[in-house]
Amino acid sequence: MAKNAIVGQSGGPTSVINASLAGVYESCKRRGAGKVYGMLHGVAGLLERRTCVLDDKLKTALDIELLKRTPSSYLGSCRYKLPDWHTAEGERVYIRLFEILKELDIGYFFYIGGNDSMDTIGKLADYGAHIGSDIRFMGVPKTIDNDLMVTDHTPGYGSAAKYIGVVMKEIIRDATVYGTKYVTIVEIMGRNAGWLVGAAALSKGEDCDGPDLIYVPELPFDIDNFLVRIKELLAEKTFVVVAVSEGIRLADGRYVCELTDGVDFVDAFGHKQLTGTANYLARRLAQEIGCKTRTIELSSMQRAASHLASRIDILEAFQVGGAAVKAADEGDTGEMVIIKRLSDDPYQSTTDLRNVHKVSNVEKVVPREWITEDGTYVTDEFISYVRPLIQGDVSPVMVDGIPRYLYHKKK
Amino acid sequence: MAKNAIVGQSGGPTSVINASLAGVYESCKRRGAGKVYGMLHGVAGLLERRTCVLDDKLKTALDIELLKRTPSSYLGSCRYKLPDWHTAEGERVYIRLFEILKELDIGYFFYIGGNDSMDTIGKLADYGAHIGSDIRFMGVPKTIDNDLMVTDHTPGYGSAAKYIGVVMKEIIRDATVYGTKYVTIVEIMGRNAGWLVGAAALSKGEDCDGPDLIYVPELPFDIDNFLVRIKELLAEKTFVVVAVSEGIRLADGRYVCELTDGVDFVDAFGHKQLTGTANYLARRLAQEIGCKTRTIELSSMQRAASHLASRIDILEAFQVGGAAVKAADEGDTGEMVIIKRLSDDPYQSTTDLRNVHKVSNVEKVVPREWITEDGTYVTDEFISYVRPLIQGDVSPVMVDGIPRYLYHKKK
Repeated sequence: MAKNAIVGQSGGPTSVINASLAGVYESCKRRGAGKVYGMLHGVAGLLERRTCVLDDKLKTALDIELLKRTPSSYLGSCRYKLPDWHTAEGERVYIRLFEILKELDIGYFFYIGGNDSMDTIGKLADYGAHIGSDIRFMGVPKTIDNDLMVTDHTPGYGSAAKYIGVVMKEIIRDATVYGTKYVTIVEIMGRNAGWLVGAAALSKGEDCDGPDLIYVPELPFDIDNFLVRIKELLAEKTFVVVAVSEGIRLADGRYVCELTDGVDFVDAFGHKQLTGTANYLARRLAQEIGCKTRTIELSSMQRAASHLASRIDILEAFQVGGAAVKAADEGDTGEMVIIKRLSDDPYQSTTDLRNVHKVSNVEKVVPREWITEDGTYVTDEFISYVRPLIQGDVSPVMVDGIPRYLYHKKK
Repeated sequence: MAKNAIVGQSGGPTSVINASLAGVYESCKRRGAGKVYGMLHGVAGLLERRTCVLDDKLKTALDIELLKRTPSSYLGSCRYKLPDWHTAEGERVYIRLFEILKELDIGYFFYIGGNDSMDTIGKLADYGAHIGSDIRFMGVPKTIDNDLMVTDHTPGYGSAAKYIGVVMKEIIRDATVYGTKYVTIVEIMGRNAGWLVGAAALSKGEDCDGPDLIYVPELPFDIDNFLVRIKELLAEKTFVVVAVSEGIRLADGRYVCELTDGVDFVDAFGHKQLTGTANYLARRLAQEIGCKTRTIELSSMQRAASHLASRIDILEAFQVGGAAVKAADEGDTGEMVIIKRLSDDPYQSTTDLRNVHKVSNVEKVVPREWITEDGTYVTDEFISYVRPLIQGDVSPVMVDGIPRYLYHKKK
């Protein structure tokens, strides 16, 4: 690697996204890259020339270990969508971006992100080819949502799934405590894909019955049917625990959370921010069954709980970073690193490459056959798919009782 | 210990309440007690003769280790207040209870709980003395709220504080990610005492600035002042993180959460269930400052996150159980075990006894001098008090990626 490299993070964070950053950095240095720049807040920050030199921040091997264990994008993130470069106005953005990359003498460009970030990599690689640039653009996958096509799974998903499984089990134990009838509704992330909410089933085992119902966003949600199921469950047991995706929708396409009086918020990619699903359902239960309910939103802990990261996940997150650097060094561009599952038992995986256009703007959802016939749980096949991804623990570096992160205070 | 013993758990659970149960059980067996019974769902269950024999459930040393790591009251809990025994109707309850204890040949009665549970122990000891019973009644302290008088702190508090500190740090990291202006409001348990919300300050350190504001329930909450402080903070930094107690009240005594349109729920002890404080404040911020906000309720994870238990806490929870048995065996009754801090540096503690009437129905709040002058943070003295209680970790027994609990499925 003769020239400098630059790396950015985009979209929602995961608890292992910085392990990918560490993987990119270490491989760049091992392969002889000059400086390794970091974009501050992704491409949006880069367009404002906001960058740092990672070599100044990652001075020791301990720094790199701390970085791997630090949640939330170390470099900051953005939700910025590059314009179409076929318009004159759009092209101006690309001209500025490539000018900045030239100033920094960049030969390698790495972007750690999900669907929208791969859209960015695709456009940059295409525009680069169009103008004959020799900069290589590589995508490094991450998203807790696990909704990227082509790859077996995405780094970040395993740790989020582990967090959901562990906390769901604690919530179920907590629900038993008074022996009184009530319903707990746990709201879990995942706009259009049930990978996260399905992970609630990981709590099930010899010592826990798991949640009673799991509602994925892939199937239309029928409120009347839901009320009937809760009534049936309350007739046979004291406490009922339900896991619902924030993104469940009625047959007519309306999100359940839209039925509340909440205010819509739409992000830069046009995605609606969803919240309030559990509260709406709890209110309906109180009104129509009169049962006691409580709601729990797992909230941003799902993407930030690095203290519960999965060892497999942090390892793979590191590997996809390194694999992207290797590929770029060997001449690839416009590709995303994918994870291929070689074997389930024992679990083994390796990395490979796919053209980034096959990834971007398409969401991978849970296959219908991994959801039970009646649509209220995931199947054993689903659990067999997820289980290897939550194996092993990563000890936080505890200082005075609290995990230590890599963080540079502003002077 | 010649006779049988019985042990119950009452009130809200903690993530280490079962370590106290293990401590009671082990000491009883070591001291030669006959059977050790468990009350199912506390005194309320005992009145319905719902008990189990713990000897049948705790057969191996591994069972006891799993019990210590199992969140939520293993025996189930209740919120039952014993009536006044000076009335004929009230006395009937005591007569029935002592009949049941006689049938089971109980010589030692242990109750693990908070304020309300110590009220139970006090009444039972008094009534026992009144009728000349030789049963010894001992209180074992627990509560995440840390609001028991006389004891330096309560088992359960350290682990809840550790959970709050760790998660607050993850939330603060998460709040930095987009570099956009917004306010995160984190709602933390603690009806009348700021011990839990103050623990949010544990996130502060070399690598984290901690939350910007902490609002304890001890001081009246001034909404106008709050809005001004948020405006000031947003003028100087991008993200603002606020920790609020669920129990903050206006100067006129109304709970902030009562200002919403939510429905009141009052438990058996007449305590209002509080929730919605953060959502109310977020709505006010959106209306009056127009800033983006998000709210996070730490919810029951604060009392159930055994995967983040503090080693000191689990050790002391075990010790207070054993100390209660020792005292009962040596003839004490109507007492609660307390924790005495011998030294801060190095942290050392021991157990002692206090008459249970000095404990019950009085709440220990955070001293005014441990809250900053302007009432929006806790002082270094507060942090020095809490810090030793969160030290050390307890590895969950991980099976297939998820912590294993002690749990007996119903046949």
